[in-house]
This record gives sequence, structure tokens and C-alpha cells, in this order.
Amino acid sequence: MAKITPELIPFHTATAAFSAGKDSPREYLERRIAKIEADEPQVRAFVSLNIDRARAAADMSSDRWKQGQPLSAIDGMPVGIKDIIETVDMPTECGSPIYKGWQSNRDAAVVAALREAGAIIIGKTVTTEFAAMEPRATRNPWDLGRTPGGSSSGSAAGVAAGFFPVGIGTQALGSLIRPASYNGIVGFKPSQGALNRGGAIDYLSQSVIGVLSASLEDSWNVAHAIAQRVGGDPGFPGLMGPAQRPLGKMPRTIALLQTPGWDQASFAAKRLLDDAITRLKSRGVTVITRADDKAVAEVEMAVTNGIALSHKINGWEWLWPLNSFKTRDAAALSKFMHDRMATNAKMTLDDYRAALAERETIRASYAKLAEHCEAVVTLSAIGPAPVGLHGTGTSPFNAPASMIGNPAISLPLFTEDSMPLGLQVMGFLHKDADLFAIAGWIDDVLGGTHA
Amino acid sequence: MAKITPELIPFHTATAAFSAGKDSPREYLERRIAKIEADEPQVRAFVSLNIDRARAAADMSSDRWKQGQPLSAIDGMPVGIKDIIETVDMPTECGSPIYKGWQSNRDAAVVAALREAGAIIIGKTVTTEFAAMEPRATRNPWDLGRTPGGSSSGSAAGVAAGFFPVGIGTQALGSLIRPASYNGIVGFKPSQGALNRGGAIDYLSQSVIGVLSASLEDSWNVAHAIAQRVGGDPGFPGLMGPAQRPLGKMPRTIALLQTPGWDQASFAAKRLLDDAITRLKSRGVTVITRADDKAVAEVEMAVTNGIALSHKINGWEWLWPLNSFKTRDAAALSKFMHDRMATNAKMTLDDYRAALAERETIRASYAKLAEHCEAVVTLSAIGPAPVGLHGTGTSPFNAPASMIGNPAISLPLFTEDSMPLGLQVMGFLHKDADLFAIAGWIDDVLGGTHA
Repeated sequence: MAKITPELIPFHTATAAFSAGKDSPREYLERRIAKIEADEPQVRAFVSLNIDRARAAADMSSDRWKQGQPLSAIDGMPVGIKDIIETVDMPTECGSPIYKGWQSNRDAAVVAALREAGAIIIGKTVTTEFAAMEPRATRNPWDLGRTPGGSSSGSAAGVAAGFFPVGIGTQALGSLIRPASYNGIVGFKPSQGALNRGGAIDYLSQSVIGVLSASLEDSWNVAHAIAQRVGGDPGFPGLMGPAQRPLGKMPRTIALLQTPGWDQASFAAKRLLDDAITRLKSRGVTVITRADDKAVAEVEMAVTNGIALSHKINGWEWLWPLNSFKTRDAAALSKFMHDRMATNAKMTLDDYRAALAERETIRASYAKLAEHCEAVVTLSAIGPAPVGLHGTGTSPFNAPASMIGNPAISLPLFTEDSMPLGLQVMGFLHKDADLFAIAGWIDDVLGGTHA
Repeated sequence: MAKITPELIPFHTATAAFSAGKDSPREYLERRIAKIEADEPQVRAFVSLNIDRARAAADMSSDRWKQGQPLSAIDGMPVGIKDIIETVDMPTECGSPIYKGWQSNRDAAVVAALREAGAIIIGKTVTTEFAAMEPRATRNPWDLGRTPGGSSSGSAAGVAAGFFPVGIGTQALGSLIRPASYNGIVGFKPSQGALNRGGAIDYLSQSVIGVLSASLEDSWNVAHAIAQRVGGDPGFPGLMGPAQRPLGKMPRTIALLQTPGWDQASFAAKRLLDDAITRLKSRGVTVITRADDKAVAEVEMAVTNGIALSHKINGWEWLWPLNSFKTRDAAALSKFMHDRMATNAKMTLDDYRAALAERETIRASYAKLAEHCEAVVTLSAIGPAPVGLHGTGTSPFNAPASMIGNPAISLPLFTEDSMPLGLQVMGFLHKDADLFAIAGWIDDVLGGTHA
């Protein structure tokens, strides 16, 4: 198997040189294109590319920086877009033959906002079938024999491969945080509804659009630029927080949450987290756990069935459009999708309502935790990316935040078996800015350089 | 100007004959097709028709009724679909040249559910541009020189013309209740989120899919059939209530709400409502008003700026996809849309959040009213359909329910100037079944025959 060299290339560190005339968005883009030309045949992060339009956009951005008039902090940033999100200049294929070559009539809200902010949409990135479980072709840049995770496979692998500094993805279960962990990059799952999902083939009540990147700064800048231009989901307040990324801030108290993932996590992964906790304690942070805090113990209990409950909710919410796709071309759906439909067909509207009520109880339990701590830490995945491309890994550490709707960040701080592994920091609903401050501090203290 | 004869033809009264073998869904459909062939050139309710597929579906339905195995109470019902709602067999054009000939990849959730229940999708019905203000070609069957109202223009006019017993529409401000009033038909705007909007080009937080029909029974049967199969909007509990339409039930207390519409309503319209109130009182119903009940007075105050607030919220939520359409083809948007964009461009995310907070306050105020009365009555429109096709009328009586999210029904009980006018009965969130019971009783007491 060929090897490539993963490389985290932030965007925000490049803009000073744009202003100084020593570099430009066009040159920055050309370096990314060179990486793509060299390594894309191995990584397979893209479904489609629009290099011509990207170059034209980069030239206009270069002019703006030269004139000292960038449209935003992300003017000139090349971005990869998960292929369930519509783009007017490229097909949206959703990882499904049913959508092969399908042309939308518009840019999705996040894409329109990114273009308005001067960002460059370089291509569409590989997703699992309809952002669910069936993997497509992408490989992990750290080991081409391993999965990059999913469902935001191409957006995560593309950042790790240096194809673009930021990829847009979505998470309804673990599709941002898990691939961020597997690819050794920063993953940001915002609060539920924080970024407008209009024009994404994504209708799940606990799905959210998020950012995969090489740095916290880029993540914040992208999320903020989107929210200011097109807001959050209709009826939601949208991402809260200042234009500038909140600087690192030490938390007084954090909670260690084991989640259902603990029993499945590798010995090495648990050891790495334990060591990190020890180091945070040595810096004066109080760490509460299920053993010594009743509110933490309650949340641990509440999230025990997180994956099963999420599957139930997501499953009912997938009845449509799967019923329409099945009527049209049943053979074009994977066995996984057929199995999912068979399971969901047994659900009733009353079952769904009961599941929603259960989720509300869990959300209330987690919200109470805010009185006990400023953030929550756990692993981002049970271990490094599994070997093989037949699956995209599991989400026991990720389902809680998806179900609860709270924001979460994966920091690429650990290594196991020469592969990256993430530390997950979780915050509280609409307190994404506070989460960034604490994650920034933790990254720094634990030796990270991902600010 | 030619004249046609409006005719309310319910579906539920026909099914006994289907079972008895004296009539069939195919024959019922052929009678509708005959009406369409005769009057559609005048009414212009349709954007597209799929008669071949409708006939094939009707034949299958006829077989099921013959065998005593209909799929549901609406098996064989011909339905018109507002053209912002996707259908896999017809284009979805949204009343905009931007969507001319655009093919979706699927049926929208409501369409998929209707087909599963055996209903027959006969065609796509005219909508104003993106379900907003710019009128298209439809005429009012009661007077071809008048507007049918909007934005669900074709679905409402088609029911009044006898083209189909049920049309599917949407309302974010007044787009179901107002055209129901203008066309002399039953309009049902369900509780917010009660019917799944998946696959509708409709992203407003206060928009809802609803039913325009010749009878309360058909409305309930259709809404219930949809909710049971595809639920409500993701994260919402979906339409609550039994499979059978709740039978008429006398309320002890109702509130008369004037709303901002009172000052604009015609003298005759106000007189008609006053007379109706007098008759309800004579049957023993207690009617509370702003003059004698503090909670009613509070709601009247709260909804004073309902239209302005709704425009603000809808306006921000329209920033996307209008920004994407404008980039693509600005000339294809109406002057109204350009004006809307110019206004909305001045809004910030903070303005939007403030508007959402104001809406929450109004919702809380209305919810308290439930302790004082079982239903609310008001007019459905300020008067009959205005003369001319250059506009679709105004919504001061409709904005409150849209903003609050409570269910509302328009009953075609009044006549002014030889044109129909509706009495609006409003209920409380997720209590759609109770609303049907009270509306049914009111219809009966006031001499209606729309059960």
C-alpha cells in the first residue's frame, strides 16, 4: 500500500502573509491543488471538483487581500463540502446511485454563506450513503488500509491530507467527532440548530452541520461567518458568540463522562484519557466523575441507551424519504438501508413520540450538569480508526452529544498504534463560545498546537 | 367574463357507494376530469397534470374497494398538490421561472404518505412565487375576475371548482385560511409541525402544511393519514388525535378575537360575525371578549404587530435561498422579492433572535387563554376576495395563528356581495382534534353542511 504524509495546514496563519503581499489565496490554493493532484488518487476524498471556478474565486480573493479589503477572516479559504449539501455548480449525489448526477437549483445555505464571506468551494467530498452507515471509497491518510470514519469521510480525510484547511460535515450520531478523531484533526459539532441546514439532504432532528479543520481558529471563523450570514436552522437562535475566537480559559471544574463507550474503548485509549485527566488535575482543575458526583452519575445513567434511542429517532425520521426512494428504485439502496426500513416500518407515530419524550428527559438531565461543571471530557472514539474500508467505526462516545444537542469538539491530542485519537470536550447548549475557550486551554495544556 | 359553477364535492360521502359497487374511484375521478376539461381553461388551477398515472392509480383503488380492502379512508381520493411540494412524476416549479421544469428526485413526505394511503395525485397546483406574494394565473371560481387568494391559490380554487375534493397547501402567514375563505371551502391549518414538510421548498419556522377541502371529514382523514405514515416535522410530535374525525361538540366558552383585522374588515363582514356570535350565545355558549376578559385583552394586545413580526421572522428565514437565487438569476425574481431582500439585508442575526423572543412571548400569552375558553372565533378574512388578479389579498386575521402555531379552521358559512367568506375557529397547540369537534358543532349550529 502506498503511503502519504498527513499534514495539518491551517488557514488563519496564512492571512498575515496575504496582507503583506508575500503570499496570496491563489498561491495558497495552488499548493492545495498540488497536494490533491499528488494524493487524491490514494485518498479518494472527493466526489467532484471545480478547480476552474476555485481558481477564479481565489484570484478575486487575492485582489481583495491585496487591497486590504477581505470580505471576512475566511476570505480565500478553500473548503470541501460534504456531498449531501447542495452546490449550484456541482452535482449533489448523497453517496447514493439514486442521486447520481443530480443537480440542485441552488447553493445550500452554508455554501451560499461561505461564498458571500469569500471562501472558495473547491469540491464535494465523499459521504456514506445518505450520511448513514454504508461506506464509500475514501481512505484514511494516516493509513490507507483504514477507514477515515464517517459519514463525513471525505471532509475529514481531505483536511488530514492537506487538500483543504476546512471541510464541512454533518453529525446526527457521530459523523463529525469520530472522523475528526480518526484523521487527527479538529472537529466541531455545534449546538443543535446553530448552522442553517437549508439545502442539505438531511432531515434528522438531531443532525447538525459542523466544521472539520486544522485549527480551532479556523473552525470558529467558519462557523461564525456562516451564522452571521444565514443564521441557524429556522426558529433556532443560531451560533452564539463573538466574531473573534474566544481565547483559552482554564475551567475550574470539568466532568469526566465515561458514556457507553467506556466498556468498548481500548485499554490504551482509556489510559491516554486517564493520563490527560491527571495532567489537567495537576494544573488545578477539579474533575468530577460518576463516582463522586450525583449529577454526573445521573447523566451517565441517562445516556446509557443513547445509541439505541438515537437509532429509533433517526429511524422514524428516515421513513421519508426512504419510502420514496424505495418506490422509485429499491435496488439502488444498500442492504443496510433495506434493513433499516424493515426495522422502522414496525415503528408507529406513538413510538416516535415516546422516544422524543425520553430524549427530552435526557436533555434535562444533562442541562442540570451545567450547575456542577463548565465542561465535560471524554474520548472521541473507542480507539483509532479500525483497519479495513468495509465500515466506518462506531459512535458510543458521540451519540450522547448528538442526542442532547450540546456542542462538542474533538482535539487531536492522542496517538495509539501510530494512529491519531481525539480527546472530546463537550459544552452546554448555545454556549459554543465557552466551549471553544475551554477546549483551547486544554489543547494548550496537553501539548496541542491546534489553537 | 365566462362563468362557472362552484361545487363542493366531498370524498367521504362517496365511499359507501364504492363499497356497494354502485360507484368507483375511477368513475369518481372521471367526473373530476370532466370538470377539469370543462373549466380549467377558465380557472387555471393547475401547473401540471398527470391524468394517465391518476387513472392507473384509480383503477387499482377501484379494485381494492371492490375487494373490500381499501388502504385507508382516503383510498381513491384525487388530491391536488401545491407546486412548492415535490412530486417524482411532475416538475416542482414553485411559481418561479427559476424552477421552471425542475425535477425532484422524490415525492415529498406528504405526497409519499398520500400515495401509500391510496390517494391519487392528480396534479400540481398554482402557487404564488415561492409561496409569497407575487400572484400567478389562477382565478376565483365564484367570480373569474377576482383572486382566489394565495399562496395556495390553485389548491383552493381547484376544490371550489370541483376539480378535486382535497388540495394540499401551506401557510406561513395566511395562505390556507384566506384562500379557503375566498373560495368558500373548508381550510385546515394544523398545529405547527403537525404534518411533515420534508420535500417542500418551504423553510419558514412558522409555515405548516395543511388541507383545503369540501368537508371537515375529508380534512381530518387526510391529515391523519399523512401523520400516521410520515409524522410531523422532525422533532415534532405530529398531528394528535383519533383515526375517526371527532364528532361535533358544543363548547361552553369561546373567545371572540378581533385581531388587527377588525379595523380593516368590511362592515358587512363584522355584522356577519356578530350575528353568528349572537346565535352561538343563544345556544348557551359563553362568549368572552377583550371587553370582559383580561386574558383575551392580553392576546389582542400581543397579536397587534403580528403581521410586522411575521414578516420580520419570515424575512430573515428567506435570506437563504433568495441569496442563492439572486446570484444565479436576479432577473428571474419579482420586484416583490427584490424589495423583500433589500429590507431583509438590513436585518442582523441579533434582530432575528429578538423577533423570535417576541414571538415566544406572544405564544405564551395565547397558551394562557386555554384556561379561559375552549376555542377562539374570528373572521377568516377582512371581506370576500378582492376584485382583480394583481394581488391575493391580505392576512391580518391569519397572521396570529401562523405566528402562534395554533391550529385554525375556516368554515365557509358567510356570504357577502354574492361571494363566500369564512368564519375562523382557532384552537390550541396539538389540540387539533378538539378544534375539529368544536368547529363541527359550530358549522352545524350556524347552518353549515360541511361536516
